[in-house]
Amino acid sequence: MPYELYYWPGIQGRGEFVRLALEEAGANYIDRAREPNAEATLIAFLERTDIAHPSFAPPFLKDGQLIVGQTAAILLYLGDRHGLAPKNPERRLWVHQIQLTIADLVGEAHDTHHPLSGDLYYEEQKPEASHRAKWFREERIQKYLDWFETILARNPDGDAHLAGDTLSYADLSLFQVVEGLLYAFPKKTKALLAESPRVSALRLMVARRPRIRAYLESDRRVKFNEHGIFRHYPELDG
Amino acid sequence: MPYELYYWPGIQGRGEFVRLALEEAGANYIDRAREPNAEATLIAFLERTDIAHPSFAPPFLKDGQLIVGQTAAILLYLGDRHGLAPKNPERRLWVHQIQLTIADLVGEAHDTHHPLSGDLYYEEQKPEASHRAKWFREERIQKYLDWFETILARNPDGDAHLAGDTLSYADLSLFQVVEGLLYAFPKKTKALLAESPRVSALRLMVARRPRIRAYLESDRRVKFNEHGIFRHYPELDG
Repeated sequence: MPYELYYWPGIQGRGEFVRLALEEAGANYIDRAREPNAEATLIAFLERTDIAHPSFAPPFLKDGQLIVGQTAAILLYLGDRHGLAPKNPERRLWVHQIQLTIADLVGEAHDTHHPLSGDLYYEEQKPEASHRAKWFREERIQKYLDWFETILARNPDGDAHLAGDTLSYADLSLFQVVEGLLYAFPKKTKALLAESPRVSALRLMVARRPRIRAYLESDRRVKFNEHGIFRHYPELDG
Repeated sequence: MPYELYYWPGIQGRGEFVRLALEEAGANYIDRAREPNAEATLIAFLERTDIAHPSFAPPFLKDGQLIVGQTAAILLYLGDRHGLAPKNPERRLWVHQIQLTIADLVGEAHDTHHPLSGDLYYEEQKPEASHRAKWFREERIQKYLDWFETILARNPDGDAHLAGDTLSYADLSLFQVVEGLLYAFPKKTKALLAESPRVSALRLMVARRPRIRAYLESDRRVKFNEHGIFRHYPELDG
């Protein structure tokens, strides 16, 4: 039975981290966000009262009777099933710790354009977004990239992967978050990547994986846009 | 060998979720945040270059040679070792999914007093904090409490615990986040808890656990204050 991925249509968002793992695994899945009436389908699912383990928010993955929400928890589940995480428990936990740190970065990237409220448009909180984005651009991106660079450099199995010497879901997620930062804050991110050779190499390595490349070139990959988490507002790029 | 918990001194913060699990487990641990010169100890640790798996930020837990960071990952580790999580893999993942949702709520609570930048004081972003807190108070707290109430009501093993019929680290964390909300937003949270009988009962149940009660009454429990995540600024309570 195929997996079913539920998420908001029209954007990459947090669902994209799950998609990259499913694509790399060559998994059989139905992307409910890419079907007609996807938003109505999603909302109807969220309103169901017969589900013992409802997710607080999308994305969530359905695997038969099992429903798993929270991006990092979905990847923990898929990582074990598709060889995208180490089997050793301590290394498996380390990959998860990295993923949780990526999730924090994703949350901060979102808040650059919505610092005051998720109920307002960006256009209604532009001065505050400008302030928040400045801090993110000048302090936070670098701090995160430095940490990724450091853990790559310290990986005892080599600096090609975040953990061990094979691909993990955290590598895929780091690729995705760098792509997002390059879209949203191109000037700043390009400058910082020039000083982050290991992160840059990992990004290219992931992009060249045959299944990832095929996915990125397909129309299944929705383009970044100004409805998602990573939005390009030139005035926020400094 | 005792665990060692590293965190910022003087506040409960994210470290408190780990402390509650360690206390409930009756685990042997050294709280490095409660020792003299704790901040210098922490910073020196963060600056070490000989650690293969450095954490991006505190809290982190040292167990012999193993270092685990990210609150939810630490709890995943402790939950398995101390019977604070189900053994069944799908239920274990559900408890973790709940914990990750609690982590999102904690992050949102923090941002009510720091919507623009972590580098500014609250006093330098009061109008923006007022706006962000209004949204949090009027929309977000209720949405989260409704979800906790729903998953308690739908627990097939009864509504006394978030998952199964025994205590998990997620129960402890829900207690902590409700305590924090009651401290920071007492008017709003009391009103909402009056309509959340299951969450209220869980809070009391956890507070009455003998080891938790002993901890809460001890001087190991630092009081909530205006340096932590949950801060009581009356003007933000509406």
